[in-house]
Amino acid sequence: MPALVCRRCGARYELTEVPAWACPSCGGLLYVRKEVSWEPKGTGLARYSSLLPLPLSVSLGEGQTPCVKRKFRGVSVSLKLEYLNPTGSFKDRGAALSVSHAIQLGFRSVVEDSSGNTGLSVAAYASAAGLNPLVVVPADAPRGKKLLIELFGGRLVEVGSRREAAERAASMARKGDTYYVAHASNPVFVEGVKTIAYELYEERCLGEYLVLPVASGTLLLGAYWGLQELKDLGLIDSLPKLVAVQGVEVCPLYRAMGLEGVMRGSSKLLDALRVEAPPRLEDMKEAVVRTNGLVVVVEDGEVREALRDLYRAGFAVEPSSAAPLAALTRLLEDGVLDAGDSVTIPLTGTGFKMLEPIAKILSASETRYTPFKHARGT
Amino acid sequence: MPALVCRRCGARYELTEVPAWACPSCGGLLYVRKEVSWEPKGTGLARYSSLLPLPLSVSLGEGQTPCVKRKFRGVSVSLKLEYLNPTGSFKDRGAALSVSHAIQLGFRSVVEDSSGNTGLSVAAYASAAGLNPLVVVPADAPRGKKLLIELFGGRLVEVGSRREAAERAASMARKGDTYYVAHASNPVFVEGVKTIAYELYEERCLGEYLVLPVASGTLLLGAYWGLQELKDLGLIDSLPKLVAVQGVEVCPLYRAMGLEGVMRGSSKLLDALRVEAPPRLEDMKEAVVRTNGLVVVVEDGEVREALRDLYRAGFAVEPSSAAPLAALTRLLEDGVLDAGDSVTIPLTGTGFKMLEPIAKILSASETRYTPFKHARGT
Repeated sequence: MPALVCRRCGARYELTEVPAWACPSCGGLLYVRKEVSWEPKGTGLARYSSLLPLPLSVSLGEGQTPCVKRKFRGVSVSLKLEYLNPTGSFKDRGAALSVSHAIQLGFRSVVEDSSGNTGLSVAAYASAAGLNPLVVVPADAPRGKKLLIELFGGRLVEVGSRREAAERAASMARKGDTYYVAHASNPVFVEGVKTIAYELYEERCLGEYLVLPVASGTLLLGAYWGLQELKDLGLIDSLPKLVAVQGVEVCPLYRAMGLEGVMRGSSKLLDALRVEAPPRLEDMKEAVVRTNGLVVVVEDGEVREALRDLYRAGFAVEPSSAAPLAALTRLLEDGVLDAGDSVTIPLTGTGFKMLEPIAKILSASETRYTPFKHARGT
Repeated sequence: MPALVCRRCGARYELTEVPAWACPSCGGLLYVRKEVSWEPKGTGLARYSSLLPLPLSVSLGEGQTPCVKRKFRGVSVSLKLEYLNPTGSFKDRGAALSVSHAIQLGFRSVVEDSSGNTGLSVAAYASAAGLNPLVVVPADAPRGKKLLIELFGGRLVEVGSRREAAERAASMARKGDTYYVAHASNPVFVEGVKTIAYELYEERCLGEYLVLPVASGTLLLGAYWGLQELKDLGLIDSLPKLVAVQGVEVCPLYRAMGLEGVMRGSSKLLDALRVEAPPRLEDMKEAVVRTNGLVVVVEDGEVREALRDLYRAGFAVEPSSAAPLAALTRLLEDGVLDAGDSVTIPLTGTGFKMLEPIAKILSASETRYTPFKHARGT
């Protein structure tokens, strides 16, 4: 039986017993523990039922996104088009499984705090499942994302800041009849995201490096835990090096690696990655260190250049999705990677919901800094 | 060898010989003629290489869109999520193959006249292939679509009307170094769209009715010709009934069925379907008549209701994509269909690129008319 385990106090719960955002006895982070087997069958996330901790009870067609290969700066890059998920981001993988968990536990309402993609994904899945979605956002969240939350039938609650949003969502959940998705700490959410690793394996799209934009860590940890399972199952020999990309202004994972650097430039374009204190920071550090990976910090000029290249290549993504290509460019310039290396980059979110801001970004003049050195895991 | 055949004068051309928008000797419509076999292999459009008239030389991950099943108004509906194609519509299937044709013929530039989805799709595929994309649009085309054309590296040429756009594109093409996609008459474009039929077959998503929004007819004809091939190959016994849906204000296919009706209501929301004189009208009529299908004309109130239902179910589509669900509702009310019937609906285009207009549409009050009776094929 799959279980939720608290690493801090050792408590163990059934998945049908408690919501998953924190240990009910000590408040510690929870982890899914279960037996897995490799029996891919069917389509979408349900294809990997033998690796998921609970049955998928709502689907909007998430997963099985295309993987296309391109040369960028002379390097062979496998692009995993996660922005072609139903609500436009990889978050749909986590939302589908979390909302399924809420249904399993008998909740009628679901709440999430989010500046964007997670909120609208949860709104869509909860509505589709007949649950009542509540989404708490900071008032300055992008207009397109707020509109979508409401179009999907979500009730939008606007507050002053991200911290306030989290507090409000948690207090709504404490009333007892509302499931708090809390994607950054909820291990069920990450279990859904793991499916990206299984797909990359089946599509033969795993390279030596997997370069990811990192905010709350769900993508990094989903990839890491999924890849770890593939290795435990004997399907791959070793994990790709995980390269985490953050913006200069908010880069807690870079800091956590014990490195300091002189700040230059800004990372306004990476607003979607602005998570100051991700709850699973230690897990994220482990993912980078154990895979002999890197943390790369990028600034707006680099992101703008990468974003322009992606659009010209036909990939309509949001700015944060361009951060890995910006990082790849720098790693090549720094000689950390060379043209012989193979790289996988997930393109995480669609730019369609924010075309006006993107047009403005791309029409701006180019100023590129090299703000930081990358941080190698130690 | 695949060939292009003119039905009017009987001329026959190799695909590598001429562009495909009209017979060079008489100006008549061209049709692809070739031997086909059923050997699905791999992913995306390339999976159906044995059924395509030329190799796919550019791909952005189009095709293999999810098919999800839902109950709407008590009827089991298979929804084919075509809006999850790379540039947000089924047009990517046709653009991928047409741009491949332009490459095969040695063109360096591609031109298309389009009010939206086709234009931005062609811009993305041409740019991705290293060709120079030109897109001629009426100045009143939706802003989001025009922005995207430019973001994808397309040169936007704004003119007064759709007719002017077509004339300008044709005159650009006559200069000789520019491939004119001309999707409404180019049979290579429709060959790409046919892949939707193959996928519906493989996904077991073909119902008794296939209900489609119809403008220039590429989707209707792609589905019809693809299904016809499946039947010729012995893979299906009969074709689903093709139900073509148009707006009250512009409904040439309805008129072509020889039926007249009292107009009520408007179809402003179906601007994307506003094609007054589709060149393949006779082919389109054949598709409806031979499958014992229908033409249904819908108005804005019905479309708004269907669009709202789709968003609440998690499907973020553009208004024209809601027309088939509006038609389904009416066919149920009229007793033409009942709850025991199985229906397939492709959701053709994403709403993400026009969220502000959609929010406005959905906040409007509901006024529903029943403007027209459906037209049964005879």
